[in-house]
Amino acid sequence: MGERLKVLISNDDGIYAEGIQTLAEWLSKKYDVYVFAPDRERSAMGHALTLHKPLRVDEIEYDAPVVAAYSVTGTPSDCVKIALNAILDFTPDIVVSGINHGPNLGIDVLYSGTVSAALEGAINGVPSIAVSLVNGFEKHADFNPTAEFICGYIPRVLEAGLPPKTIVNVNTPAVTLKEIAAIKVTELGHRMYTDTYERRVDPRGQVYYWLAGEIMDEHEADGTDVQTIRDNMVSVTPIQFDMTNTQVLNDETCRAKLNVDGSVHAILG
Amino acid sequence: MGERLKVLISNDDGIYAEGIQTLAEWLSKKYDVYVFAPDRERSAMGHALTLHKPLRVDEIEYDAPVVAAYSVTGTPSDCVKIALNAILDFTPDIVVSGINHGPNLGIDVLYSGTVSAALEGAINGVPSIAVSLVNGFEKHADFNPTAEFICGYIPRVLEAGLPPKTIVNVNTPAVTLKEIAAIKVTELGHRMYTDTYERRVDPRGQVYYWLAGEIMDEHEADGTDVQTIRDNMVSVTPIQFDMTNTQVLNDETCRAKLNVDGSVHAILG
Repeated sequence: MGERLKVLISNDDGIYAEGIQTLAEWLSKKYDVYVFAPDRERSAMGHALTLHKPLRVDEIEYDAPVVAAYSVTGTPSDCVKIALNAILDFTPDIVVSGINHGPNLGIDVLYSGTVSAALEGAINGVPSIAVSLVNGFEKHADFNPTAEFICGYIPRVLEAGLPPKTIVNVNTPAVTLKEIAAIKVTELGHRMYTDTYERRVDPRGQVYYWLAGEIMDEHEADGTDVQTIRDNMVSVTPIQFDMTNTQVLNDETCRAKLNVDGSVHAILG
Repeated sequence: MGERLKVLISNDDGIYAEGIQTLAEWLSKKYDVYVFAPDRERSAMGHALTLHKPLRVDEIEYDAPVVAAYSVTGTPSDCVKIALNAILDFTPDIVVSGINHGPNLGIDVLYSGTVSAALEGAINGVPSIAVSLVNGFEKHADFNPTAEFICGYIPRVLEAGLPPKTIVNVNTPAVTLKEIAAIKVTELGHRMYTDTYERRVDPRGQVYYWLAGEIMDEHEADGTDVQTIRDNMVSVTPIQFDMTNTQVLNDETCRAKLNVDGSVHAILG
């Protein structure tokens, strides 16, 4: 019997969220699990880092039989960064972030704390997975099928050998394992929101705004994460954090215009 | 005389920071400027959004002769999103985020509030520029050359016609306009940090950690933003927010492994 893989898990819903606890339960059956997660809900944090305040890292008792669990007073990115650079005295085999309570599809990934924790793993050279259950925000959502799936999928991701600067972003549909039609490697869809703000007046007569965006239920192409979830399949999207648009870099016309004649003085003209 | 362009400006250093005020001064000479910026410093926020709290938007007096200036109790992304979706009754011609007090090169862009505000512009379909002065964190940094450059560069960016989901990320070196060697269209460099955490003990005997990462001064290839700045040139990097790694999508071997046989049951084994 070989040595067990060491898995670092994190999330953005907070260390006591059901999604990460169910994940910890399942992964502990096969792997040595270390939990580093925010002490409270930190969703829609994007890839935020705490620079101007101290971070506290407290080892806590945890329901799941993990090796150790640490509550961190920071963002999801903080959790993974501090685990890898200050607390753990070894490099884990993989980082898994989730299970998020709700989807991270299309444009969502840009705002997602769950995805950012996985990206932080990749920035530190560790293979990483972000995982989300699309109906996870519902009161009686069952995280067990997703956790069981990820438990089996970890060796496959390691074997696939993702290129540098790349993670996989997994979304699972709201069905039992038996009902999942297939696994599909996908690209990010559009998934645009209406971005409505509700304008309200507070008890002291002052105006405030609250973001109330709704998803525009537009057509999405086959092969996108959004359509794949609609088809009751597991969506696996390879995501990279090098955001250079190489298309523009190689487009001579666009490049020439941006570059002008390479001289600042032509622009000031 | 044609109509003046309408420019929305934002930042992550806060609405009273010198970088955005100098930018507002220069742009107001040629354009109609609308300021929507955080009420306080919000750097390293990544692409965070405020979902669980109300936002306040207060029109303020501003030193520069802008059309209007609004202080927002949110993140840089919040500022641009609420301006475009709730406050302005027109769509600006361009969003400019900055001038950031310090560089946004390589991996920085992932954590940068300045870049995220520009990305939010592009998400809403408006051409957008992020701009940073690499020595802008120094006490006597001069933001004027950068502001003057951007004032002249705006029409060039509009004329270049960036593809959807793409912004330009501009970094300017710490020299006068005369000393700038050239403008160069670049790709993101590596610019990795050591990610050291200082472990300290507080006055009550409790441990805390503080991120103290330093830049690893590694070799960077010609054509990267990092090297271009070292060569005293203005770096202009096209950045896209669609993070799909199409290389993996098109790599049959990697794809096959991630996809297994497309069935969940093979994975549960």
